Amino acid sequence: MTLSDLDVARRLADAAGEVILPYFRNATTATDNKLEGGFDPVTVADRAAERTMRDLLAKLRPEDGILGEEFDPKPGTSGRTWVLDPIDGTRGFISGTPTWGVLIALSEDAGPILGIIDQPYIGERFEGTRAHAQLRGPQGTRRLATRKTASLDEAILFTTFPEVGTEADRTAFQRVAREVKLTRYGMDCYAYALLAAGTVDLVIEAGLNAYDIQGPIAVIEAAGGIVTNWEGGPAHDGGRALAAANPDIHAAALALLQED
Amino acid sequence: MTLSDLDVARRLADAAGEVILPYFRNATTATDNKLEGGFDPVTVADRAAERTMRDLLAKLRPEDGILGEEFDPKPGTSGRTWVLDPIDGTRGFISGTPTWGVLIALSEDAGPILGIIDQPYIGERFEGTRAHAQLRGPQGTRRLATRKTASLDEAILFTTFPEVGTEADRTAFQRVAREVKLTRYGMDCYAYALLAAGTVDLVIEAGLNAYDIQGPIAVIEAAGGIVTNWEGGPAHDGGRALAAANPDIHAAALALLQED
Repeated sequence: MTLSDLDVARRLADAAGEVILPYFRNATTATDNKLEGGFDPVTVADRAAERTMRDLLAKLRPEDGILGEEFDPKPGTSGRTWVLDPIDGTRGFISGTPTWGVLIALSEDAGPILGIIDQPYIGERFEGTRAHAQLRGPQGTRRLATRKTASLDEAILFTTFPEVGTEADRTAFQRVAREVKLTRYGMDCYAYALLAAGTVDLVIEAGLNAYDIQGPIAVIEAAGGIVTNWEGGPAHDGGRALAAANPDIHAAALALLQED
Repeated sequence: MTLSDLDVARRLADAAGEVILPYFRNATTATDNKLEGGFDPVTVADRAAERTMRDLLAKLRPEDGILGEEFDPKPGTSGRTWVLDPIDGTRGFISGTPTWGVLIALSEDAGPILGIIDQPYIGERFEGTRAHAQLRGPQGTRRLATRKTASLDEAILFTTFPEVGTEADRTAFQRVAREVKLTRYGMDCYAYALLAAGTVDLVIEAGLNAYDIQGPIAVIEAAGGIVTNWEGGPAHDGGRALAAANPDIHAAALALLQED
């Protein structure tokens, strides 16, 4: 039996969720600090889940490369790369909030062509490919579609600010935040999932890595949204990202981010 | 058959969840602005759920009073009052985040003696009485217990700031935020539930109503925590609340809030 790329991605998400969940809200979970002085907790679960996904890929897609948060990149021969973030939102994870997620993308040179944002505690999986945009969760299975909000004064904005970004980033972010109907904080990758599901309009972040954003890009694009960097170019290498439900709201937010 | 107070509270939560869920992440959900100029959305679900809970109480506890967010207080003859907030966290609700909750409390003159924080989308119910502190959710049923974190530099703080409170409130809040390990934003009543579950240590808020805080007070006290106002007195009438996992961390945060 040949597994499709989506089948493989689902197996990765299933396996990661099984490894991670026993550690969630477990008082004995071990954490350590990745960055000296900074607060960037990494749980045992994070490493174990990436190990498990890499082992699966070695069997199912040995010719593809792997880029993951926890271990060195593995070169491939196919020109395709699996991009893995076993627990995106470690701050949320250690706080017990179910806003972290398992992020999986399959990328070619031009960017991600498949993505999954999986929240195994709630039992929600947001999927996007060029032909498929689906949420499976407590309310059943439905098609993902972004919404049509055209003006900032009707928009809901999510961000991890004030936690991340430089002072200049924050100033630019505030120009957008001042114009929108509602700004919400601290949702980790779940914010991108909600944008794909059509309940929020904008997500603005900075300081991202490629593995933080490639899964969300594929899911959001499949659902009809747009993700770029703050210059309007490709965002799949990380850095500063602007995700938007549609071209109108993207253009309005981009103009404010670039104003100076 | 005589229903216990906890049985009654569970029936209220069940009924409210059933009414509310069809409106969650439903693009056609009607909202209106309660405060002129301010952003305080009330969904149709909010009113329908409170109506349903009031109808149930009229049958099951006709002698008790009712204080709810959406309709006028109903006086009782028993000296006991059911305190209802059908959707706490309406901003989260309209954004699609499962951090809103159904809040139910049963109160006597001295304060709440029973509370439920219910998150029906995830399927999580946090309960507290004088004899019982329980979480039932995706990982099964377990006892709720706050944790022992004794110093602020080990503490995780949740808040709805920067969204609420006066300038002076924010300044006091920042004195605490500067000392803790991690501050997270925008979790609505879910933050109190996590404090009871032992994954966070402090929740600091301002501008609360009685129905926002009485359910959380009962759940947190049952789990071993403490909730007061910023002067160290009872918090069950609303206003500014400091919820803490234990007496040590409560005292440390209270001292910083009161410093001037």
